[in-house]
Amino acid sequence: MKKLAFATLAGSLLLGTLNAQAADVDNAIEHRQGVFSAMKWYFGPMGAMIKGDMPYDQAEFTRRAEQLAKLAPMAEEGFVEGSAEGTEALPAIWEDMDTFSGGFDKLESTTAALVEASMSGDMAQIKPAFGDVAKTCKGCHDNFRED
Amino acid sequence: MKKLAFATLAGSLLLGTLNAQAADVDNAIEHRQGVFSAMKWYFGPMGAMIKGDMPYDQAEFTRRAEQLAKLAPMAEEGFVEGSAEGTEALPAIWEDMDTFSGGFDKLESTTAALVEASMSGDMAQIKPAFGDVAKTCKGCHDNFRED
Repeated sequence: MKKLAFATLAGSLLLGTLNAQAADVDNAIEHRQGVFSAMKWYFGPMGAMIKGDMPYDQAEFTRRAEQLAKLAPMAEEGFVEGSAEGTEALPAIWEDMDTFSGGFDKLESTTAALVEASMSGDMAQIKPAFGDVAKTCKGCHDNFRED
Repeated sequence: MKKLAFATLAGSLLLGTLNAQAADVDNAIEHRQGVFSAMKWYFGPMGAMIKGDMPYDQAEFTRRAEQLAKLAPMAEEGFVEGSAEGTEALPAIWEDMDTFSGGFDKLESTTAALVEASMSGDMAQIKPAFGDVAKTCKGCHDNFRED
């Protein structure tokens, strides 16, 4: 009886731990997807301004660049072990974490450079800086995200 | 015939505008929900550290407070007109935008104060500062979010 009670207790604790881990994974996925949604929100209209689909507004462009740069370092921590399933994240992420992580370093540096460029109000500086951010996004999506 | 062609064109343009507006509303909802998910990600473990459910780590606590303070001003712009449907956002938001917006001002000031407090490493300062953020969240949820 004592043995059974212990087995039940151990089972419950294990189940509790597994449930807690599952919740952590869910939170991690929600976190990184949330950060990417917010990045898309700030990034989209900047592209439209550059293409001329939306009037260019320097203050608004800069504000968006600043928020983007603040978000850039946030998503990576959401890629916890075991959090690929049911998402577009490819296993390659965890097989080559150094490259993946390097992509986030580049996202931080290119978004910071975009803030600098956007403050100039000079399209000759803004366009290539914006392109560098877009290329950084695409680079990771090509290698680490399901098509 | 010309009239019909014009009517069709006008109809297409209107539909295009409506589709674009619907996409904007969807993006706005995804944006604000994404920001809240990220806030939850940073906030949850801070609460666990305060309760003693997780070991307190000053650097990690401060890092989380800092990210929270960066996110605090981001969600509000996602509450665009016509974006309540299918979400927990109550119509009261758009009926009393001043109060709602004041809640976000408070979220900014209380999260900034939490960063300050967390740098002290002193629980006598951290606990009430954390409580002020939690109360600010709850205040808006009580008034502007469906139960």
